[in-house]
Amino acid sequence: MAALPDLETAGAVRRDLRAAPFLVAARGGTPSRVPVWFMRQAGRSLPEYRALRAGTGMIQACLDPELTCEITLQPVRRHGVDAAILFSDIVVPLYLSGIGVDIVAGVGPVVARPVRTAADVEALPTLHPEQVTPVTDAIRLLTRALGETPLIGFAGAPFTLASYLVEGGPSRNHEKTKALMRSAPAVWHALLAKLADSTSVFLRAQIAAGVDAVQLFDSWAGALTERDYRSFVAPHSAAVLGPLAAAGVPRIHFGVGTGELLGAMSEITDVIGVDWRVPLDEAVRRTGGTHPVQGNLDPAVLFADAASVESEVRRIAAEGRAAPGHVFNLGHGVLPETDPDVVTRVVDLVHTLPVR
Amino acid sequence: MAALPDLETAGAVRRDLRAAPFLVAARGGTPSRVPVWFMRQAGRSLPEYRALRAGTGMIQACLDPELTCEITLQPVRRHGVDAAILFSDIVVPLYLSGIGVDIVAGVGPVVARPVRTAADVEALPTLHPEQVTPVTDAIRLLTRALGETPLIGFAGAPFTLASYLVEGGPSRNHEKTKALMRSAPAVWHALLAKLADSTSVFLRAQIAAGVDAVQLFDSWAGALTERDYRSFVAPHSAAVLGPLAAAGVPRIHFGVGTGELLGAMSEITDVIGVDWRVPLDEAVRRTGGTHPVQGNLDPAVLFADAASVESEVRRIAAEGRAAPGHVFNLGHGVLPETDPDVVTRVVDLVHTLPVR
Repeated sequence: MAALPDLETAGAVRRDLRAAPFLVAARGGTPSRVPVWFMRQAGRSLPEYRALRAGTGMIQACLDPELTCEITLQPVRRHGVDAAILFSDIVVPLYLSGIGVDIVAGVGPVVARPVRTAADVEALPTLHPEQVTPVTDAIRLLTRALGETPLIGFAGAPFTLASYLVEGGPSRNHEKTKALMRSAPAVWHALLAKLADSTSVFLRAQIAAGVDAVQLFDSWAGALTERDYRSFVAPHSAAVLGPLAAAGVPRIHFGVGTGELLGAMSEITDVIGVDWRVPLDEAVRRTGGTHPVQGNLDPAVLFADAASVESEVRRIAAEGRAAPGHVFNLGHGVLPETDPDVVTRVVDLVHTLPVR
Repeated sequence: MAALPDLETAGAVRRDLRAAPFLVAARGGTPSRVPVWFMRQAGRSLPEYRALRAGTGMIQACLDPELTCEITLQPVRRHGVDAAILFSDIVVPLYLSGIGVDIVAGVGPVVARPVRTAADVEALPTLHPEQVTPVTDAIRLLTRALGETPLIGFAGAPFTLASYLVEGGPSRNHEKTKALMRSAPAVWHALLAKLADSTSVFLRAQIAAGVDAVQLFDSWAGALTERDYRSFVAPHSAAVLGPLAAAGVPRIHFGVGTGELLGAMSEITDVIGVDWRVPLDEAVRRTGGTHPVQGNLDPAVLFADAASVESEVRRIAAEGRAAPGHVFNLGHGVLPETDPDVVTRVVDLVHTLPVR
């Protein structure tokens, strides 16, 4: 592994936000109000984002510190959420390491040369800390601009990165990925170890630059059985998340459709993100009652009438009180057609609700 | 509801297949061998299907009795599966009732006029038994051609049909459907009642024509929480399945990603189909130990090496022994790129495995 930023000294640049509701809840304490942010809060649902992004490619936007900073700030300004999340994309560390990948509008990430053999894995570059500069520059701008609002670092988990690399792009069924996993386990584990290495470098650089928490997204993990997740995936996600404990920033782990995996995922993280299909009190039971939870309003509920939105928000906040800490969020990302005013009203409502 | 075929007299045309392994297992008995069939066994993965379908639209193929018969028979001949399933599509009863719907290659069902208001629901036609003749003609050809192999009837469940009608086509997030459900529950329940009516007519006609079992596919139910499934969906699926009990043919109910719904779904059916994410012995626990199960090999496993396929097949057969009956199947449909020879080898292997 490349030389890593020292996690302990990174604390020197980090803001002292110990009373921030998001950080208190993520550490299992009792915050001054129920904190709320939304996955994909920065991005497609905001007209000011669409205006800013016009003419700029997705990866280009993620590597322009001023633009990344502004896009990350937009939902904080508009909605008054309790955390910002670094605007980025799952494939950014792959791109920065020199892998040929582009994000094609309407398709998603497209990989120039899919990775399917031992030689392909051997040839795969890994990320070096100095390659992360465009992202760490954005983080330094953000920690100055955000005032008292915490900033969450962002990375995709090794399995989800591997699916893009093996399939060559987005896949509904991940059949090539799952075939490689079973048919060539040595190649598979070598691939995931390399991706875990790059992901570690990416998140450590973000922590060293001053993020206050990190979220590891395993977008596609829900396609796996718990048995396969534990055998083929969890050790590599743990290799990313485990050593980050030394940094003292909350680690959040999330994947959609992971009801069967909540126990296994919770073993390697601090805060467990929960998809909307599993009520938060049930998620608390599945994770042993020891983990703060994050979630889990169905993003589609934001398209319903105001009374339905309110009753669902109240239900989720009530179920979240079963956890040692609850960070209100959606159960997946904000959908592109969402009315931003509805999102703002959810924030306002959550902030009126009792913490305990 | 339109005049319905008499379910009791329908038994007169049904073959006496009481010893068929599929039917014995589906009734919770001990079959002579573990029965196996595959969702989407007829269709895209077979070269003989692609040859036969060339130049014929999907709906047109479903309404040509000779063609439907031949397509349905192809996997029985090739793989030696223990059941045939009527080749059809979820939108066929909508089309037959006069709703403007087409199946567009590479897209899926496209609805000419989406259904979103009380007036839209009021104007929606329902299916009449005489409109099902192209399908019942195919069933009569099939019961003669199939010999001792049972034939499973096919229909989509009201929620899944509603999603196509409300969204206007396939949808990843079902936001318009979920919004209608919450914001206009009276319109929603009127829509689902109409769709349950048409689905009842469709399945009753199939039973009257001689099918030996029925499977109700709620493809998209896995997008719902259990709470919403019970409030907005299950009563309408129950209105379809409940009265069919009088016909004495096994009723199978399946949806992908329904791990959280298995208990609720099992309450309204005989056999519960299980997605690959939930081990069959766990599915038995979630459904009270009283229901035969069907499933649940991950369709992507068929892309792995032979040793991995074998070990997964053996694992699933072993877990299935926890149920009062086990019908071996995939945990979702056969994927288009699947090698048909691998499918045949799974059938051969399953037939060597112990039943208890």
